[in-house]
Amino acid sequence: MQATELLFEIEIKPPLKGSRQSANAVYVQLKNAILDGRLTLGAKLPPTRSASHFFGISRNTAGDVYEKLEHEGFIFTRHGSGSYVAHALPLLSSPPARLDPPVSGQHRVNPFWMRTDVTTAMNFWRDSVGSPAPPRKTPPTDFRPVLVDSALFPFDLFRRVSATQLRGLQKRPSSHRSLEGNQGNHSLRTAVSRHIAVTRAIVCQADDIIVTSGAQQAFDLLARVLVIPNETVVAFEDPGYPPMRVNFAAAGAKLVPVGVDAEGLMVEQLPKDVGIICVTPSHQFPLGITMSLRRRKALIEYARTHGAIIIEDDYDGEFRYDAGPLEAMRSAEAADVVFYVGTFSKCMLPALRLGFIVAPDWLMRTLITAKNCLDWHCSTPVQRTVAGFIANGHLSRHVRKMRAVYKQRRNTIFELLRGDLRTWLDEIPSLYGMHVAVTAPESVDLEAATAALLRHNVRMHTLRRYFFGPETRRGLILGYGSADPTQIHRGLSLLRKVLQR
Amino acid sequence: MQATELLFEIEIKPPLKGSRQSANAVYVQLKNAILDGRLTLGAKLPPTRSASHFFGISRNTAGDVYEKLEHEGFIFTRHGSGSYVAHALPLLSSPPARLDPPVSGQHRVNPFWMRTDVTTAMNFWRDSVGSPAPPRKTPPTDFRPVLVDSALFPFDLFRRVSATQLRGLQKRPSSHRSLEGNQGNHSLRTAVSRHIAVTRAIVCQADDIIVTSGAQQAFDLLARVLVIPNETVVAFEDPGYPPMRVNFAAAGAKLVPVGVDAEGLMVEQLPKDVGIICVTPSHQFPLGITMSLRRRKALIEYARTHGAIIIEDDYDGEFRYDAGPLEAMRSAEAADVVFYVGTFSKCMLPALRLGFIVAPDWLMRTLITAKNCLDWHCSTPVQRTVAGFIANGHLSRHVRKMRAVYKQRRNTIFELLRGDLRTWLDEIPSLYGMHVAVTAPESVDLEAATAALLRHNVRMHTLRRYFFGPETRRGLILGYGSADPTQIHRGLSLLRKVLQR
Repeated sequence: MQATELLFEIEIKPPLKGSRQSANAVYVQLKNAILDGRLTLGAKLPPTRSASHFFGISRNTAGDVYEKLEHEGFIFTRHGSGSYVAHALPLLSSPPARLDPPVSGQHRVNPFWMRTDVTTAMNFWRDSVGSPAPPRKTPPTDFRPVLVDSALFPFDLFRRVSATQLRGLQKRPSSHRSLEGNQGNHSLRTAVSRHIAVTRAIVCQADDIIVTSGAQQAFDLLARVLVIPNETVVAFEDPGYPPMRVNFAAAGAKLVPVGVDAEGLMVEQLPKDVGIICVTPSHQFPLGITMSLRRRKALIEYARTHGAIIIEDDYDGEFRYDAGPLEAMRSAEAADVVFYVGTFSKCMLPALRLGFIVAPDWLMRTLITAKNCLDWHCSTPVQRTVAGFIANGHLSRHVRKMRAVYKQRRNTIFELLRGDLRTWLDEIPSLYGMHVAVTAPESVDLEAATAALLRHNVRMHTLRRYFFGPETRRGLILGYGSADPTQIHRGLSLLRKVLQR
Repeated sequence: MQATELLFEIEIKPPLKGSRQSANAVYVQLKNAILDGRLTLGAKLPPTRSASHFFGISRNTAGDVYEKLEHEGFIFTRHGSGSYVAHALPLLSSPPARLDPPVSGQHRVNPFWMRTDVTTAMNFWRDSVGSPAPPRKTPPTDFRPVLVDSALFPFDLFRRVSATQLRGLQKRPSSHRSLEGNQGNHSLRTAVSRHIAVTRAIVCQADDIIVTSGAQQAFDLLARVLVIPNETVVAFEDPGYPPMRVNFAAAGAKLVPVGVDAEGLMVEQLPKDVGIICVTPSHQFPLGITMSLRRRKALIEYARTHGAIIIEDDYDGEFRYDAGPLEAMRSAEAADVVFYVGTFSKCMLPALRLGFIVAPDWLMRTLITAKNCLDWHCSTPVQRTVAGFIANGHLSRHVRKMRAVYKQRRNTIFELLRGDLRTWLDEIPSLYGMHVAVTAPESVDLEAATAALLRHNVRMHTLRRYFFGPETRRGLILGYGSADPTQIHRGLSLLRKVLQR
């Protein structure tokens, strides 16, 4: 029997004659074989019938074990064909376990949301479990990435635009009855198309844009429309942004980590059956690398050849420091394969929850149908206010101002890194955005260092939580969206002291 | 062979010796057998292996046919057990077909969003396909339900509150970093808990509430968390609200239509394996019936006995006319099984896109995890403004005012219905909300009547688009959220003329 041969080959032993294995013992054997690589990614498992003979358990029990492995993301089932080891599912490097499901009478809920890797990924902003609570007296210094300095946001202008726009809303308050309206406020889409033409050299029309509730909803929308459950393979940069992986895992995709080198995503590592490739070409998240032109071309070529599409997450592309803006990957030539995701969380405020997708026209109507199902459309007052804010030139002025502010902070960090800190930390060049990453040799205990910093109310992430494949790099993220130069000096001098110990 | 016997029984004939059937012929035979009821709901299909022998097609082809039937919602697969006829899947009474998938190179997208029943349901607000475009010169009269009279909304007060709240935001602009914040603005949740205590007699705390982007996102969130794909059975009132069904179908649920009589949802029609029961007890959508107390008790009892949960969609419960507010189903005793969904689309404005769920505490943390994945949280400026609007008493005043306005409109409609229109139309009593429904005998051609009205720019839905099981009632919806008394007179007098022909 072929199926049994496979189990022998990977050193899963049949039980002794007469003994019967429990479901849990079988589950543990199979899971360990997957985790330690004896069962290779994509390998076909024996049918439940053969497995039940082999392990001396009932076919129903074998089915339960498979179902548990599937719910936890270790295996997937192809209709009429069988069960396979997932290509790589854990969203984080830790193997997923399941929390106790919430209980009320007999009702069962979708176990996906109880997976520890899922809850950990969605708790991305939290301090590590078991970390001490930071002291309340010390003023906080926050080096976590993806924060912005909202103290510098022109709230007075925003308020003024908001009042004007609410007057406009009074005249035309209609909602969710037209497909076009649900694609997003037309004046906002027009304003966005002009804004990204200037800042990102993207040539598109209002009709190519769909407005979303931040980049997070953009990922969710794309995952739900583009992923065929248990079939579509999605490649992510590793390290990368864990919450985004949850959107695709929730939609039933098979997730594959792909390494990043000095030129960006390593295209040669992409699996042949990849359907979706998620990248941060301007400013790799979290390493801060800008993808080389050569690599960009290779990536688009790869996607075209393999029938895949590319999702370009351009979360901080407005903030380029050392030259004029480099084009986005979503150029006119790549408009058919690249989905460009932009956000107002970095260039304005995360609290607005507003982002957008520049999508190929072959999928726009389908995206609108799905967006209708999600929540019809984004809140009209906010959409109108941001539209007015952009149209009045406030956004360009704010971006210009913040570019100077953030550039100074980045330079402060680089200066400090080139001092004593060089002993422990190597900088990774960074041209864009609001954070830089540094790497460290294994001898430096970064987890202990960040835990020590937290006791002084300095919050800093190590790279660990960004990986879901093997942890190939050890390092720190130094976000300067929220930390001003004084805080940067304080935080990095504390870091030096901690590392000296 | 048992499998073949089944096919014989339902008069699917094996092909002549030597002839081979095409995949499409097999697909059509099976689909028709499901549609005309020969293959009963829940029946097990022969395995693809047997089916391939029987039809003289390859096993791969048989797998393809099954996959197509599954994508279209006719069958579902249970892991390790086989394929079954879905309990009832089309979201509308018309059998689902698939539109041409969007094409770009070799990339495939999730076919769910191309199903005609899905796109039709999400185009719920549109006029019927093929209807004439209404003339632009005539002022429109809109009897579609779920519209509000935004001309009467106190925009000046809203603007003032908004300005105050944006000042507050400037002081505390933090976002999506705390789980508690992602559950929704705390002052909004507090304000909502007080508001629904008064208007709906619901006793709950801020911690029992999660804020969503309208009721639509509440349905989506609940569907994603509560549905186990291909397993969970969800019962809907039929007729009902089609867009809500899409959320559950998208999450992989098996949808079952349940009839509505004068007391509301017919509990005795609920399937034994039901997991989720969706109801509109205050004001059945679209029939306008209020569920009797006896039926409410029976429903809660049924849910408890069968390990199911109840979703109470209370879209217009604030507007009760003929007595004080009747309690919501979500009473303190039923707090463990009822998920209460509220919205600000009716009592304020749909354009705000703000709603909420009062959820049992055993699921709250899981709901927040999923909400984080969807979009982290709702737009903070809008949340704060609505919180301030409620806290300042503006919402109670507005609801009080609108209750009088809408009551007068409803009474106008009832007066007119009790005149000449009685010849063709029977009213259904309605105590709440912003629409009433009327029924008509088969002899009255309502589709022709509404098409004729549209030529005069009067928009009115027949009941047809609200059904997904058999069309057991024929009738019209008369929404008065947008139509004022003058428009009601004009519209119904036109309706009379049209029916007289």
